[in-house]
Amino acid sequence: MTQARQDAALALIELFEVDALLLLGLVNIRYLSGFKGSDGALLILPQDRHLLCDSRYTLQASDEAELCTVAEYKSKSEGITLLLKKVGCKRVAFDAEKVTVSFLNILKTALPDVDFIPVADELDQLRAVKSLDEIKSISAAANLSSTAFNELLPLIKPGVSERSIALELEFIMKRSGAEEKAFDFIVASGYRGALPHARPTEKLLEAGEMVTIDFGARLDGYNSDETVTVSVGEPDKKLYDIYRIVKEAHDLAISAIRPGIECSSLDEIARSHINNCGYGDFFGHGLGHGVGLEVHEKPVISPRSRQRTQVGMVFTVEPGIYIPDFGGVRIEDLVQVTEEGCIILSKASKELNVC
Amino acid sequence: MTQARQDAALALIELFEVDALLLLGLVNIRYLSGFKGSDGALLILPQDRHLLCDSRYTLQASDEAELCTVAEYKSKSEGITLLLKKVGCKRVAFDAEKVTVSFLNILKTALPDVDFIPVADELDQLRAVKSLDEIKSISAAANLSSTAFNELLPLIKPGVSERSIALELEFIMKRSGAEEKAFDFIVASGYRGALPHARPTEKLLEAGEMVTIDFGARLDGYNSDETVTVSVGEPDKKLYDIYRIVKEAHDLAISAIRPGIECSSLDEIARSHINNCGYGDFFGHGLGHGVGLEVHEKPVISPRSRQRTQVGMVFTVEPGIYIPDFGGVRIEDLVQVTEEGCIILSKASKELNVC
Repeated sequence: MTQARQDAALALIELFEVDALLLLGLVNIRYLSGFKGSDGALLILPQDRHLLCDSRYTLQASDEAELCTVAEYKSKSEGITLLLKKVGCKRVAFDAEKVTVSFLNILKTALPDVDFIPVADELDQLRAVKSLDEIKSISAAANLSSTAFNELLPLIKPGVSERSIALELEFIMKRSGAEEKAFDFIVASGYRGALPHARPTEKLLEAGEMVTIDFGARLDGYNSDETVTVSVGEPDKKLYDIYRIVKEAHDLAISAIRPGIECSSLDEIARSHINNCGYGDFFGHGLGHGVGLEVHEKPVISPRSRQRTQVGMVFTVEPGIYIPDFGGVRIEDLVQVTEEGCIILSKASKELNVC
Repeated sequence: MTQARQDAALALIELFEVDALLLLGLVNIRYLSGFKGSDGALLILPQDRHLLCDSRYTLQASDEAELCTVAEYKSKSEGITLLLKKVGCKRVAFDAEKVTVSFLNILKTALPDVDFIPVADELDQLRAVKSLDEIKSISAAANLSSTAFNELLPLIKPGVSERSIALELEFIMKRSGAEEKAFDFIVASGYRGALPHARPTEKLLEAGEMVTIDFGARLDGYNSDETVTVSVGEPDKKLYDIYRIVKEAHDLAISAIRPGIECSSLDEIARSHINNCGYGDFFGHGLGHGVGLEVHEKPVISPRSRQRTQVGMVFTVEPGIYIPDFGGVRIEDLVQVTEEGCIILSKASKELNVC
């Protein structure tokens, strides 16, 4: 764990006036300890930190969670209970977005004298600004993902199903070393392009349709996220116009990115352009979201966002226009905020590709 | 929703003396309404039921959740709050294993006059006994999975990596129509066979090693789960003996299955055989677990289980012996309890296969 992360964790302990911070979400555990296993718990005290895991992970935890005392449990709730009794905590903050009501009830029953204080947003914000190492990891995932997409491109043609495109892209990524797809890919062709979150179906691509492909890879825990809309054969005039408008909205937002700008104003820049072109009713979602150890994390880039950009934030810019029963276009890049503006981490071309 | 499921939900409302049952876990929502979307909420009242979802799923919900009134929300917590106010509930039971502390706190803040009652085990038990339709779905997933494994077999040979075996099996399944792998496959060869939950690595198979492959497919929401241990070339004498003992433990447990038997006694039958053969210290996990809409569900087949088998339960039987720094064997079948005993749903051969 870097000094910055240690300090951030200790600041939360101070802010909430608690004896310790208990982390149960895997992403938070990894972020604050280095442990990459699929189950465990992390207790951060002002003076030391304890990583709890089952026997599968004891060796791995000692290796990865360098600054932690590692202890093994048979049952996670028992392990936590024993540890909290041993260290004598009375007020414990925990990651309330990751803990189920059931699990908290088990802890409360076992430890009736301990106050458990829920923490949500403050913890999520810890990960919003990425370190250089994290940006390197996200960038590696984005490179792998974009390269896989370019390898997929020749397969996009009339008569191929949405599902086979999604599968082939997944297979290429995994053969190239992705540990997992970052999320279930969206492949939406023709009239289905009107559905922002369409799951791939057996529908076959037809000439004259556009197809929206939203994809990403996970590599060493870090995710990428990118969307390309391509035209299968020569595009319909109206779709071509929509593509142009979405691309302009995308470019306007990206060129406005710099440190200290309100996230909501980035959304507004893209939204007002789409609005001015007469498609304001057809862009229903926010402009973007942070990406890192989770595919959706802070910051949120939407009209309701109350945050400002900072150097090191990594988020998507993904305007879209979706016309029911007709079709749609989304163009998404993943950007890193820098002192000068931003760097685009996703590498597939966003110029209209006619397959 | 079948009458049996309706009755079970109403029985819970009565048992907990509440006005309604609020479901937030997707599997519970699907089980009790038919809705298969990836987000939503279900409120079951004694007289009617309400399915809440976002705009992506409104059409799908009306189609799938036949007996429900469907309403759309912008924010899930707001949608639930409005509905609970409208129907005037004062005591609401909810699926506490699926709801985070954060989400419950949002609801409690919005509805200070409503008592929220956590329900965990009683809800999980609803799904332990499968309907004929469910068994058909699980069986279809198991067939697809076993067929894919048989197609994989010729690829298992010295010089092939664990990771490429896992990937190839996944690709075969998905090309055959699986909607997803049921879980991250385990491929553990040679000394790594000692790790019950080993993730596939770049390690290459070597002649004389055994390799344990734990795999399953998801098809229309239902999962399968099966483990085969094969020998790469002629097996080492000690590994061969271990294989025989695990297979005997597996066969003994399966031949003891009938309705009304204690789940813990099934575990004991396999465990005492392994114990008597001198390997009692090397079988650390329970004998099995239920499989259905989730890969791990009720019943638990372990020494601590307090349940008896019933006709229609579907669970795994998976004894193993794991010798640190040497290797291991696990053999797992998926069985359906019948009036006469059980039917094995997983189809890959459990006789030692020498590849």
